[in-house]
Amino acid sequence: MAPPPPPSEQPEAAAAGAGAITKVLIVMAMEKEAMPLVNEFKLVRAEESIFPKGATWTRFHGNYKDLHIDLVMPGKDVVFGVDSVGTVSAALVTYASIQALKPDFIINAGTAGGFKARGASIKDVFLASDVAFHDRRIPIPLGKLSTGDSLDMSPEDEAAILSNDATIKDMEGAAVAYVADMFSTPAIFVKAVTDIVDGDKPTAEEFLNNLISVTEALGVAVTKVVDFINGKCISDL
Amino acid sequence: MAPPPPPSEQPEAAAAGAGAITKVLIVMAMEKEAMPLVNEFKLVRAEESIFPKGATWTRFHGNYKDLHIDLVMPGKDVVFGVDSVGTVSAALVTYASIQALKPDFIINAGTAGGFKARGASIKDVFLASDVAFHDRRIPIPLGKLSTGDSLDMSPEDEAAILSNDATIKDMEGAAVAYVADMFSTPAIFVKAVTDIVDGDKPTAEEFLNNLISVTEALGVAVTKVVDFINGKCISDL
Repeated sequence: MAPPPPPSEQPEAAAAGAGAITKVLIVMAMEKEAMPLVNEFKLVRAEESIFPKGATWTRFHGNYKDLHIDLVMPGKDVVFGVDSVGTVSAALVTYASIQALKPDFIINAGTAGGFKARGASIKDVFLASDVAFHDRRIPIPLGKLSTGDSLDMSPEDEAAILSNDATIKDMEGAAVAYVADMFSTPAIFVKAVTDIVDGDKPTAEEFLNNLISVTEALGVAVTKVVDFINGKCISDL
Repeated sequence: MAPPPPPSEQPEAAAAGAGAITKVLIVMAMEKEAMPLVNEFKLVRAEESIFPKGATWTRFHGNYKDLHIDLVMPGKDVVFGVDSVGTVSAALVTYASIQALKPDFIINAGTAGGFKARGASIKDVFLASDVAFHDRRIPIPLGKLSTGDSLDMSPEDEAAILSNDATIKDMEGAAVAYVADMFSTPAIFVKAVTDIVDGDKPTAEEFLNNLISVTEALGVAVTKVVDFINGKCISDL
């Protein structure tokens, strides 16, 4: 059996896996949600696309502490001119970004509906994760996330999600998790509550009224997560 | 102004766009659905993956008449061992296949639920298309397709789809259409009815009882479409 190669000769992928996290991919759905983070991390809009011609996806990037951060979004729907939300566009931009950028770690951040029956209130931020974060030093409560492709939902969907113990409901998380798992990239989900699913107010109105202030809270929470992982290895989380 | 280059010097993409269709991509969800077509077109399972390591997607390919056919599927879910159905995996395999194969034309073929209120019966096959097929020489009726991520549906969903004039309901079409549109690749949708959405029988049971015979009908219909496009240009359709 040959002895292991000295550290300088180890392949790059193995070194990245064993060493500290250096490349973080943040996946978000809407530019309005992303702006506090773009400002906090001093990210700039990427001039050159890493995505194929035709793709509407947008990317901001920059260095923050010891990390290189790429923040990607599906961008505007070419037909309707609105942000492309939902599982399909989230899965596609996550897939293309993993292939092009080979991130060490993915953060899917965004707004969500919260279930007051599970203790969620407007502006609460929850962390959902397939990573253990066993020492729980990030001061953000954990919540179980359920993902669906509509902003509001039928009574049947609401019952199914509640029986599934979900605290929060978003439109992207499960799709990002599916792609991240496929390519063995650890991912966490930071979700801020813009509306109460099992409340009295119309979902769309509540969402729009709360979007700006909730987005600020989301930015603060994601910054805590990024500060926490800075300098750490995946195995430290 | 420079004269146009002689035909032999024209860029490949322009030549492919102007000439006959040569590369057809068939996107399907389940191996059981695909086997009649794999046999009819004498396709073989691709030995080398064109997809990145980690992707579960499978591909069959071969030549049929003047066409090279690639048939792709999301493959088995690594956790549950069942076929990965639904919009997210359909979108991903369509995206990765467009990037790797640059098809001239996409056919999304599969099973669907039919609305008897719109005249659909078990084993009917419908064509849904964003391509005109203005001469209507393919003897397959046109139907409006609606896509959702569940096999059965809530009364709210059923009402929404019916008010949208849909004849058939599948779990992949809109996702394939979204990606095909993004990269300007013409696509049609061939859908065979395995169950009646607005009928009395439980959806899952009806689907399984009819799957084999409906899949044969689907194979016949897709072969008609492929025979029809063989030797034609996109502008002939």
